[in-house]
Amino acid sequence: MKTASQLAALVGGTLEGDADLHVTGVSGLEQANPGQLSFYGNQKYKQQLADTKASVVLVPDDAPPRGEKTYIKVAHPHLAFARVAQAFHPPKKYTPGVSEKASVHVTAEIDPSATVMDFAFVGAGAFIGARAVLYPGAYVGEAASIGDDTVLSANVSVLDRCRVGARCLLHPGAVIGADGFGFALDMSVPEHVKIPQAGIVRVEDDVEIGACSCVDRATTGETVVGQGSKIDNLVQVGHNSTIGRLSILCAQVGLSGTTELGMGVVLAGQVGVAGHLRIGDMAKVGAQAGVISDLDDGAVVLGSPSMPGRSYMRSTAVFVKLPELQKDLRDLKKRLDALEKGKTQP
Amino acid sequence: MKTASQLAALVGGTLEGDADLHVTGVSGLEQANPGQLSFYGNQKYKQQLADTKASVVLVPDDAPPRGEKTYIKVAHPHLAFARVAQAFHPPKKYTPGVSEKASVHVTAEIDPSATVMDFAFVGAGAFIGARAVLYPGAYVGEAASIGDDTVLSANVSVLDRCRVGARCLLHPGAVIGADGFGFALDMSVPEHVKIPQAGIVRVEDDVEIGACSCVDRATTGETVVGQGSKIDNLVQVGHNSTIGRLSILCAQVGLSGTTELGMGVVLAGQVGVAGHLRIGDMAKVGAQAGVISDLDDGAVVLGSPSMPGRSYMRSTAVFVKLPELQKDLRDLKKRLDALEKGKTQP
Amino acid sequence: MKTASQLAALVGGTLEGDADLHVTGVSGLEQANPGQLSFYGNQKYKQQLADTKASVVLVPDDAPPRGEKTYIKVAHPHLAFARVAQAFHPPKKYTPGVSEKASVHVTAEIDPSATVMDFAFVGAGAFIGARAVLYPGAYVGEAASIGDDTVLSANVSVLDRCRVGARCLLHPGAVIGADGFGFALDMSVPEHVKIPQAGIVRVEDDVEIGACSCVDRATTGETVVGQGSKIDNLVQVGHNSTIGRLSILCAQVGLSGTTELGMGVVLAGQVGVAGHLRIGDMAKVGAQAGVISDLDDGAVVLGSPSMPGRSYMRSTAVFVKLPELQKDLRDLKKRLDALEKGKTQP
Repeated sequence: MKTASQLAALVGGTLEGDADLHVTGVSGLEQANPGQLSFYGNQKYKQQLADTKASVVLVPDDAPPRGEKTYIKVAHPHLAFARVAQAFHPPKKYTPGVSEKASVHVTAEIDPSATVMDFAFVGAGAFIGARAVLYPGAYVGEAASIGDDTVLSANVSVLDRCRVGARCLLHPGAVIGADGFGFALDMSVPEHVKIPQAGIVRVEDDVEIGACSCVDRATTGETVVGQGSKIDNLVQVGHNSTIGRLSILCAQVGLSGTTELGMGVVLAGQVGVAGHLRIGDMAKVGAQAGVISDLDDGAVVLGSPSMPGRSYMRSTAVFVKLPELQKDLRDLKKRLDALEKGKTQP
Repeated sequence: MKTASQLAALVGGTLEGDADLHVTGVSGLEQANPGQLSFYGNQKYKQQLADTKASVVLVPDDAPPRGEKTYIKVAHPHLAFARVAQAFHPPKKYTPGVSEKASVHVTAEIDPSATVMDFAFVGAGAFIGARAVLYPGAYVGEAASIGDDTVLSANVSVLDRCRVGARCLLHPGAVIGADGFGFALDMSVPEHVKIPQAGIVRVEDDVEIGACSCVDRATTGETVVGQGSKIDNLVQVGHNSTIGRLSILCAQVGLSGTTELGMGVVLAGQVGVAGHLRIGDMAKVGAQAGVISDLDDGAVVLGSPSMPGRSYMRSTAVFVKLPELQKDLRDLKKRLDALEKGKTQP
Repeated sequence: MKTASQLAALVGGTLEGDADLHVTGVSGLEQANPGQLSFYGNQKYKQQLADTKASVVLVPDDAPPRGEKTYIKVAHPHLAFARVAQAFHPPKKYTPGVSEKASVHVTAEIDPSATVMDFAFVGAGAFIGARAVLYPGAYVGEAASIGDDTVLSANVSVLDRCRVGARCLLHPGAVIGADGFGFALDMSVPEHVKIPQAGIVRVEDDVEIGACSCVDRATTGETVVGQGSKIDNLVQVGHNSTIGRLSILCAQVGLSGTTELGMGVVLAGQVGVAGHLRIGDMAKVGAQAGVISDLDDGAVVLGSPSMPGRSYMRSTAVFVKLPELQKDLRDLKKRLDALEKGKTQP
């Protein structure tokens, strides 16, 4: 149990209201029950703030009057909410050790503090770091390495020689290091001749990779997911792509081969990025967009093919009226025909 | 072996033709062999009906003359076909019991009539209902529950505390209860701070979830898949989304977080729906559409961003002719220039 | 270790330069180190060719002067590169035998030269061919068959009665033979009544299927992936679809039910194809396109809905300028208004 003043101290905020109030947990404004803490970060949710049953709310300086609620004023309510939520939901604890029902090659090195559950598999020469956790069905191929405090959830596959850093979280069904998609057509047979995918995937520290997401190994060299990047479910990262630090890839995004994402890039859901492109630092790509050319640092694009966001919004607004536009054009034509006729036939 | 008259009785139809005909199985009009039953529900397939080798056809009242075929007249041929097909293909039978090669926590509760196959895993405090089936590689986390007659196929993952109802079918690789995708940016580090995903997923009764589809757990509270809904393969359902009863999500659909789908909604393949939206009951969204605002009950939309279907069709028809439109506009301009010139220079 | 002249002989090329040079491996032009072999197949990469540290380059006849590099001249550099890369990266060797930690039904037939790893499962009456490999977590259902030299990677599921040909490679998490998505609505309950999916999937020889890709079983009959076709990650192939020989489906493509793809078809990333269509031989569909009508042999299409590629490019170019077009139209209207006024009010 935590008091409002303890939580204010935790997030470095200023308390207004009942300092001794016992907070029982966290929730969204609309779902919160009395005793819970919530957050308000956007004027769009003014009504929800007015109506919430939450007892304590993390708010910015310019929040509406608090009424009977207790406020904790902070610069970044959403971020403070994350910190408070972490205090209420500390990471799960695991019992160290290798299950007798797991399979670990004699040449694999498992840190004694790691947890390897039933039906997890660790191949020859693989390395599992301190406090790392392998859930049932997790597969770690030959000479692959899993960093300290990294969790491979159920049925995750990390294939030969791939390297996953520290404090990563791979959700069920994620696949790291499947072959890149590379073939050369031999018309004389005909057949698609496989180009061996001899490289690896390197996932840096503090990365989260969603359920059933796939990061392909490089043809030669490395496919890289940069430090602190977060990848949602069902995302495809093609061979030899590199994702810079702190980038965000939402669900069902697809990166073709040899795509280079800068730092802090945000790709919204279902975005596709063609191969051999460079997406600049902090670029933002809207949902379902299709990127087919390089993007500058800080670019904001929408649409397929993608274009500057404002431009896309304007064009889309006209798109809806195209039939009308077509009609207007025809009308003008008729009127012009009449005018011209009038001129030549006086 | 079933006779045509038995099948007519099964579906409450009227038989025309050979009542004693022995039907050996079901098939589509084009693929059917003599002895098989097929169905005809749409005038588009008139020619296939004329050409079919099927001996018995389920047809509506206004079907073309039957010739030498046997007809069973019913109000809904496709539905009747489903019933007949079920009669020919009853559900697979399983031998109850927990395999010695499975792993079941001592505190888990498994109904004696359930089947737990090799390499399936059931965590502490989990519950497996009557006649439920866990295929190899199925993973059921701590305190999760699986309802009566529900089947988790190979390599399905149902994570901690999630609840799957009765008579559900989860296809291989489906993931229920991976963490929702929620982070708050702390620019002072910088890092994406994880917002703990402390809620659950609740899958109601009679739900089917496709292969490698992912339903994320809620941040707090529940992500819900409503009774009788059917989800195809590779679908993403974001945290705190709710899907009403009897909705249909085709393959590769993506729902962002906190999306609310009404009852009987149909989302065609590769549709994306932005977060914090309400999609009305019986709304229909065409393939690849991108929904970025609320939809009324019964809405029919297409396109990205989505718009009323008819409007989209019209605009698309003009889109193809845009280069022509542009040229027409230029021509008009020239003609107008000339006219104006003529006026001012008499 | 291989010499330049040995590699020239391997690919039937003409050597120019140091015949005795020892080649240590292969790489891309930009990543290559001294001692490595690379390839140059496209004038777009002229600068990379000039700058490469590769000692040997596979080039076409009209390549720029070689300077100090060694050239191997060939008709198809990319294809020759594939052959050389294969020489440097021969397929992995496996120790034949069935692991004691695997589960194989007594009625299954496993070729003695096959490899069945820990936690792999082979159901009743299944067949595993010569030198086939089942990784941990691979699941082969009842009466399914896996051809000679085929590899099922970790956590792959091949369900009952499905047939996978020889020399296939299925990447982790791939699902062959989940139920097709077929229901009939019974408004009287209401419920979506399941249409039993009683058919199978037949994967022909030399097919590669990507991680977490799903090929659904047919309602009746077969869903077919044709000989030599290559499917990337996270692809959906609906029930009763047929994919012709040597077709290429890039990541996140979705085929609805009963889609017929010809031979040598190429579908780029995130393409969707509606059901009951015929896509002609050698047709090419650009990324994110949505195909809603039949395509002729050799068709090249883009866009959603898809249209001839050139037409799409032209229309897209105008789309960006739609706000300008709208403004031009309004200007013309005003000028015309003025002209007409001038005429009637002399």
